[in-house]
Amino acid sequence: MRIVVMGAGAWGSALALHMHRRGADVQLWARNPAARLTSGAMPRLPDYPLPESICVSDTVPAHADLILVVIPVQHLASVLPLLPAGVPAILCCKGVERDTHRFPLQILADARPDIPGGLLSGPNFAHEIAAGLPAAAVLAAADKGRAHEWAGHIASPSFRLYASDDPLGVQLGGAAKNVIAIAAGTAMGAGLGENARAALITRGLAETGRLADALGGQPATLAGLAGLGDLLLTCTGEASRNYQMGLALGRGMTPENATKLLKGVAEGVPTSDALLALARQHGVSVPIIETVSDLLARSITLSEAQNRLLNRPLKTE
Amino acid sequence: MRIVVMGAGAWGSALALHMHRRGADVQLWARNPAARLTSGAMPRLPDYPLPESICVSDTVPAHADLILVVIPVQHLASVLPLLPAGVPAILCCKGVERDTHRFPLQILADARPDIPGGLLSGPNFAHEIAAGLPAAAVLAAADKGRAHEWAGHIASPSFRLYASDDPLGVQLGGAAKNVIAIAAGTAMGAGLGENARAALITRGLAETGRLADALGGQPATLAGLAGLGDLLLTCTGEASRNYQMGLALGRGMTPENATKLLKGVAEGVPTSDALLALARQHGVSVPIIETVSDLLARSITLSEAQNRLLNRPLKTE
Repeated sequence: MRIVVMGAGAWGSALALHMHRRGADVQLWARNPAARLTSGAMPRLPDYPLPESICVSDTVPAHADLILVVIPVQHLASVLPLLPAGVPAILCCKGVERDTHRFPLQILADARPDIPGGLLSGPNFAHEIAAGLPAAAVLAAADKGRAHEWAGHIASPSFRLYASDDPLGVQLGGAAKNVIAIAAGTAMGAGLGENARAALITRGLAETGRLADALGGQPATLAGLAGLGDLLLTCTGEASRNYQMGLALGRGMTPENATKLLKGVAEGVPTSDALLALARQHGVSVPIIETVSDLLARSITLSEAQNRLLNRPLKTE
Repeated sequence: MRIVVMGAGAWGSALALHMHRRGADVQLWARNPAARLTSGAMPRLPDYPLPESICVSDTVPAHADLILVVIPVQHLASVLPLLPAGVPAILCCKGVERDTHRFPLQILADARPDIPGGLLSGPNFAHEIAAGLPAAAVLAAADKGRAHEWAGHIASPSFRLYASDDPLGVQLGGAAKNVIAIAAGTAMGAGLGENARAALITRGLAETGRLADALGGQPATLAGLAGLGDLLLTCTGEASRNYQMGLALGRGMTPENATKLLKGVAEGVPTSDALLALARQHGVSVPIIETVSDLLARSITLSEAQNRLLNRPLKTE
């Protein structure tokens, strides 16, 4: 089986290594193949040398059985013209495109309607996949049969894949988790405690489920690996940039200074505005996403944000 | 409003303090009132002195507006004869009674059919509630109107309560979280990593939802505060005895030695057998609960447990 992995960041490198172990003939596309370290590793995953038989190149071959596109959503559109016609593309990225508010599969469908696409998402730290540790994820496509087929090409005993026919719910889960992580981090940074964090994560997932429902997705998807599972990993690990962003905000830092501290914009920042816009279009109440968006825009203070998140009227869960 | 809190452990003491701050006339029932520290605090919550106006006594008054019963489920039946007739009782405990496999509200209904009962459950560390930090929980009763009414008597701006008419789902969530915490701890103790832990928690919650459905509860309850919310708090904090039990098992300790290390049986141990028995009665597949039960019974090895948890066939999520 011939696999092309586009994107040689940590996740792309880990997936290349995984597919190689699985027995595939793997080519890794990188903008700068010369960055490969003498160990064989790529710089973003330096502890995991890639075997020599994984060729790293800046050209995409014309023939392959499957392409994994592991490019951040904000840069996804720029690489899509490179994809060979007719080869199924599995997008391995999360989030919403700034300005256009499109999810990854919509970006693909708009640019390359000739290419069948799926999306891989779940609670997957790249370094653990590279180490061969067990994990699970979801492979979503509008056509369930294809989702099953593609999942079968990528899964292994240590990397279980579940097929889903709800790409919208899966993509929404991957986007919203970063916004909820900012809210959870803010609560912890402000010293509100673990009870408050657990409540915010739970209510945040509930409002994401309502949004999925309004957009035509399946709320149950949000309770699965690409929703809850990924959210868990993001909201409880100090490793998440979005959680760190929240911690800084909760300690009273301005959004500008928090962004400087993180040396770049956390993905949940533009995503909060995009999801809020979507929710308003569809008349869905998303108080946690809205509060994060307003706090980041400095249209409310930290203390107002706390009040809005925590002093809501009693009602049915 | 006259409130009796039965049980002066950490959670009972915290709830007594909360109700006092809310303006109630609070009496705290303790087996041993003389254990009260000179600071006014009870020994299990030593950092939070109770004001003198909270009377601690080993007798239950004949009249009150509401009784909060904060007694561990294994000892619940023993205090029920003390409850005054006709006063609504809110049970504040989690788990399943050993041997009988009854949930708390069933124990109450069997012993005291004359007493209307509700159940309070959610992601609530006692010391955070005592400190007045914000939190949320669910108050469940078969009659939604009563759940609302009782929630209104207990909630405050910093302790939000949601009413639920699914006591079964709420009680199942409070029981299953301890079993899933053992599974999650086992995965971490065995070095399987955070991806595996996130997957186990997610799949564990999914199987609990299927069990709720089969038992006549609402699967959506498991995605709420008393399910996911409480599970989050239990599976990610080192504070949980059940998570600690799992960590020890994952590092290769026998169940007997792990129990000695914890100085007592973790609640998830008897609960795993009880839930497995319920699942079998109703023909529900609960692979994670079953694996925990078998691992604790030493009918499988740690390595077999890992295989069973992680090498399942591909299927729809």
